[in-house]
Amino acid sequence: MNVTVFLFDGLTALDAIGPYQVLARVPGVELQFVAKAKGLIRTDDKLLCLHADAALDDVQRTDLLVVPGGFGTRTLMQDQGVLEWLRAIDQTTRITTSVCTGALLLAAAGLLRGRRANTHWAVRASLANFGAVPCGDRYVRDGKYATAAGVSAGIDLALALVIELAGPDVAQAIQLQIEYDPKPPLDAGNPERAPAHVRELVEQRIRERERQLQAALAAT
Amino acid sequence: MNVTVFLFDGLTALDAIGPYQVLARVPGVELQFVAKAKGLIRTDDKLLCLHADAALDDVQRTDLLVVPGGFGTRTLMQDQGVLEWLRAIDQTTRITTSVCTGALLLAAAGLLRGRRANTHWAVRASLANFGAVPCGDRYVRDGKYATAAGVSAGIDLALALVIELAGPDVAQAIQLQIEYDPKPPLDAGNPERAPAHVRELVEQRIRERERQLQAALAAT
Repeated sequence: MNVTVFLFDGLTALDAIGPYQVLARVPGVELQFVAKAKGLIRTDDKLLCLHADAALDDVQRTDLLVVPGGFGTRTLMQDQGVLEWLRAIDQTTRITTSVCTGALLLAAAGLLRGRRANTHWAVRASLANFGAVPCGDRYVRDGKYATAAGVSAGIDLALALVIELAGPDVAQAIQLQIEYDPKPPLDAGNPERAPAHVRELVEQRIRERERQLQAALAAT
Repeated sequence: MNVTVFLFDGLTALDAIGPYQVLARVPGVELQFVAKAKGLIRTDDKLLCLHADAALDDVQRTDLLVVPGGFGTRTLMQDQGVLEWLRAIDQTTRITTSVCTGALLLAAAGLLRGRRANTHWAVRASLANFGAVPCGDRYVRDGKYATAAGVSAGIDLALALVIELAGPDVAQAIQLQIEYDPKPPLDAGNPERAPAHVRELVEQRIRERERQLQAALAAT
């Protein structure tokens, strides 16, 4: 069983690290991080670099693909080389997954047409622009496509995949190894339960960030 | 407000990435990743490299220190240079934190003597060897020391710290940004609720891993 995690400049680290931390512990799994070019990949906040050990051209097939999100997806959604690679590798996968706005990349590649899917709550409606059917579940499975909600949802999705791929004992052992017994000290992780002023604050920050990105793109 | 995340070869990525993903979003926070030497740091499973942008010698003070865990702590607990740096930087912090076996590093540096603390459940009792008082809470605060349970617990701890440092609105906004509304598909993340055979499986894997590490250390 081979797992490929796609990295790109402007990703949100936890989108990739959550599923990796779960899936890499499945006995017999080989997991690799891949990016347009081998080397350092900077996160969307510019604070951290992750290292991709392989380039897209080196990876022609995989059993399970993980596509994380982050503001960098905005640029990649226009990148025909990346979209082409996603379409080609998807032909070889048993399961194709995304976390957060990674779903917008899959959608831009045309892979979610007619499929139920989820992404970060703040951009969920935009999935419909690509012919997908937005769905607010923590993770959504439609055929071989499994798309998780924002950032932290990749951990829940990955555990669900382990149940399917390796059985509940292995999934429970991994959950216990990473002591995943979440106890958030607040209950604002869901847009329907978060206070309205908090939701507005987040939407405002996201719009602000999008504006900066559009300006930066226009300047290049 | 300055946050320093300590990286080292053999860390568990999520221990560091969880708190970073939360704390870096606090307005006005400057966050940096530091290691013995600048450059690439390999995780305990050897599958991923993170990049440290600063060396220990470059960082003389910080407001908040995050010490992650991982099997690499076994080696570092003997590393007098690292223990000395931990003791020195701790003199400058407002809050010193750990995730998972990062607490064993703080303990080995003598910083948890007489303090209530937690770490990964499988090694919790060993905190007592360093004069700390083992406590099974998701995260434990004693004075300025905040120590989280295993791996994923760093996310909960970080949100609790944001409430304290920046108030509940900011903490709620960050929780909503990372859509932290956990829905584990299983309920095995706690050693008291996991089935006995799953717990034994994990304890056996950890013992096996410790044996390999001891053998590798003895060979060098």
